Amino acid sequence: MSRILSKTKQVFDMVIFGATGDLARRKLLPAIYNAFIENNFDESSKIYCVGRQEISQEEYCQKALEFAQLTKQKIDNDKWAAFTQQIEYIKIEFNNVEEYNKLYELLDINRTSIYYLSTAPEFFNTIISNLAKVNLNHANSRIVLEKPLGHDLQSSEEINNFVAQYFTENQIYRIDHFLGKESVQNLMAIRFGNTLFEALWRRQWVHSVQITVAEDLGVGSRGDFYENTGALRDMLQNHLLQLLCIVAMEPPSSLDADIIRDEKLKVLRSLKPLNEEDVINNVIRGQYKAGTINGESVKAYIDEEHVLEDSHTETFVALKAEIQNWRWAGVPFYLRTGKRMQEKVAEIVIQFKDIPCKIFPTSGQNVGNRLIIRIQPEETVQLFFSAKEPGDGNRLKPVYLDLDFNKMFTNSRRTDGYERLLLDVIRGNLSLFVRRDEQLAAWKWVMPILESWDNLKIIPRQYAAGTWGPGGSSALLAKDGVFWHEDIS
Amino acid sequence: MSRILSKTKQVFDMVIFGATGDLARRKLLPAIYNAFIENNFDESSKIYCVGRQEISQEEYCQKALEFAQLTKQKIDNDKWAAFTQQIEYIKIEFNNVEEYNKLYELLDINRTSIYYLSTAPEFFNTIISNLAKVNLNHANSRIVLEKPLGHDLQSSEEINNFVAQYFTENQIYRIDHFLGKESVQNLMAIRFGNTLFEALWRRQWVHSVQITVAEDLGVGSRGDFYENTGALRDMLQNHLLQLLCIVAMEPPSSLDADIIRDEKLKVLRSLKPLNEEDVINNVIRGQYKAGTINGESVKAYIDEEHVLEDSHTETFVALKAEIQNWRWAGVPFYLRTGKRMQEKVAEIVIQFKDIPCKIFPTSGQNVGNRLIIRIQPEETVQLFFSAKEPGDGNRLKPVYLDLDFNKMFTNSRRTDGYERLLLDVIRGNLSLFVRRDEQLAAWKWVMPILESWDNLKIIPRQYAAGTWGPGGSSALLAKDGVFWHEDIS
Repeated sequence: MSRILSKTKQVFDMVIFGATGDLARRKLLPAIYNAFIENNFDESSKIYCVGRQEISQEEYCQKALEFAQLTKQKIDNDKWAAFTQQIEYIKIEFNNVEEYNKLYELLDINRTSIYYLSTAPEFFNTIISNLAKVNLNHANSRIVLEKPLGHDLQSSEEINNFVAQYFTENQIYRIDHFLGKESVQNLMAIRFGNTLFEALWRRQWVHSVQITVAEDLGVGSRGDFYENTGALRDMLQNHLLQLLCIVAMEPPSSLDADIIRDEKLKVLRSLKPLNEEDVINNVIRGQYKAGTINGESVKAYIDEEHVLEDSHTETFVALKAEIQNWRWAGVPFYLRTGKRMQEKVAEIVIQFKDIPCKIFPTSGQNVGNRLIIRIQPEETVQLFFSAKEPGDGNRLKPVYLDLDFNKMFTNSRRTDGYERLLLDVIRGNLSLFVRRDEQLAAWKWVMPILESWDNLKIIPRQYAAGTWGPGGSSALLAKDGVFWHEDIS
Repeated sequence: MSRILSKTKQVFDMVIFGATGDLARRKLLPAIYNAFIENNFDESSKIYCVGRQEISQEEYCQKALEFAQLTKQKIDNDKWAAFTQQIEYIKIEFNNVEEYNKLYELLDINRTSIYYLSTAPEFFNTIISNLAKVNLNHANSRIVLEKPLGHDLQSSEEINNFVAQYFTENQIYRIDHFLGKESVQNLMAIRFGNTLFEALWRRQWVHSVQITVAEDLGVGSRGDFYENTGALRDMLQNHLLQLLCIVAMEPPSSLDADIIRDEKLKVLRSLKPLNEEDVINNVIRGQYKAGTINGESVKAYIDEEHVLEDSHTETFVALKAEIQNWRWAGVPFYLRTGKRMQEKVAEIVIQFKDIPCKIFPTSGQNVGNRLIIRIQPEETVQLFFSAKEPGDGNRLKPVYLDLDFNKMFTNSRRTDGYERLLLDVIRGNLSLFVRRDEQLAAWKWVMPILESWDNLKIIPRQYAAGTWGPGGSSALLAKDGVFWHEDIS
């Protein structure tokens, strides 16, 4: 995050492995197209789309266009045609090292080569070692890895060890697309660009913090993958802990990648380790049963395709974390994520402490002072506080100050998380990517949960699809006299 | 301010002296009418309207209705008719003690008697002593005094001494109608009903404070009065210093009148006294010359009716004050008031300190963190801070959170300042009235300005009507690297 947008056009080659997959077509190509029409690329820059399918360049580009048109953004046909001049589809069998020579001939090792591994994780090792065999892991190369990066601490370390044989840490871009989102970056701007919030951003004034990433969708066609993953691995270990880091980190001395990542790492290392008792008391595991979302009946997780009928995979997890440092000791951080929740919402709620002495009468439920940074579905910041109800009396009532980014910045184009992150890869800016030691620390903290669930045979509590998860989730907070945001507002 | 709206209907008699005057007809009767239709009065309660004119009850009520219809509020004819059943017009020559016997016969000294002195101040002593001569200064009586209460420290003390012969301090209601305004009361609610603001409300975080009460009107038909008054006496000594007290006071331990007034008094007594040098450097005296407001030409102060052509009366004053206590030492409070300014606006601006270290690039002018409490023309609260500009980069841009009381409290009726204050007199709640020692302390602080202007023959600097006052006003702040709010936003 250290650079101001450079007006120099970027010169690079990008190779997308798994280019016929969903992620590549729905997210990556539209994002690259956007960066292209914003005039960020030199015309010599190339996007090599690598897949195992036998299709023509024309077919690939046509199909890519159709996918891009399914996204919210507008595609201009002429600009798309110009864009496809920089795309080349290449058929490669990932495990056939011979075929990598095609790439070697196309790439100029004197300029930036980016390898984006958008394939299933089982191909990572093969692709990486084959790239190395044809000497494509050169000094100007960068590799982009998509989650999941391992299934637990050990497998994650195995992948990292393997990649580290061929690429240095500064060549490795571990994507967490939440970090590319405007409002997540805005969280840093709000904290470190203002006196106002940072002054209050500590145990003296903050009562508790809530981080919610709720999806209304179920597992869909990914039952296969999800059965072996679950909400803790799929969402909490990465996205929610990254958000927690950005909420809780100390002010970095600059926006340099390693300075920011050092601060995030310090947070992860300050997380109070969980023992079995903590897991029993402070971690709620849930799985959705059939229910109704927006008036539509949806089936139970166990009735989804490729899911075992006695599956114990969690589709929901809520927990209470503590950070043992001077700034946060004693402040609970409540984290929660799930599928088939009542709404799609991702938000961070900073609940400030109550006033020490009340001289005004209040009416109704008082939420106190609360800052809400909403990431999804819309990006907003709301500050709740109390004001006097007009009229003859002194009653306080909750009101809020509202910031809607769409309204406030009408002339600015909001970039999608992927677009920002891809441009950062191209520019060589690692700030918004997860460093190996961060990933390790996150897994270390999460492992006792996985182990305790296993050892103690803790099976998920059921919750109706379309709710906010099992009742235990609300009870977890109620023990501390706290309510999830939607329970109070 | 200590009581919740009581459902008990109020039983009282109110006597308005000067009932045919502007204030009585434009402000007091419409306010009392409002309180009446809100069902606050027992039907035995009476409003005795006392004037020197020989007019009938019917004429008086009809004229009062016409004036009430000129205000913004809607008057229901039937309700007005019911209201006038509680009104009685009485002709009294203020200096004829015999005529006060009429009042004595009408009033029941076993219940609350309120005497509202809405006359020119030269009648105060006569009315008060005549009330006393017929024993109407009884234990259940209250007296309401309108500004101006004196012309300087000495004359103010003379009035207060005189009144104190007949009424105890707890029977005396000195009206400052700014204190009845919703947003001024909201300032206390915001400060003491929230952790958020009070935590930052101190020298560690506040850079400076601005208090502006600007009018677009000139002196109109009041040149006579204004020639001997000027902006310092008319506005700053009372309204602006009262606002300063509410901004700067320590949290009171309750809403009891004397507890709040003790805290306000402490602020006034902590104001750093001004010497001649301070007056030369830190007080700007101005007088409007001809100019244009909203496209309309307006004349100079000296060309107004009843104004001397070489008048040195100020129509504008700006100054820098300091409060010498642990909370505020070193934080400048800039106060400013004037007539014929560019806009009618009353607002308080809390400018927070800059962040200690900047890691984000900024674009454009950065106002930093700023809380603006606007009292006139509309009542709003705005919180300015910096957020990341959307898109590919890390630039900060100023944005603001907005609270519009009209939008937020659509179902609540906003009371006019006078209505609130009159009800407080009826209920015997002194919180929003100025205590004698406050008034004394305010005059004490203001006197060196009047004396230095006189001794040093400081004459007002001219400013064009329709501007923000003489250039010296902006320069006063610029010396400290500060800008008036409208110069930056």
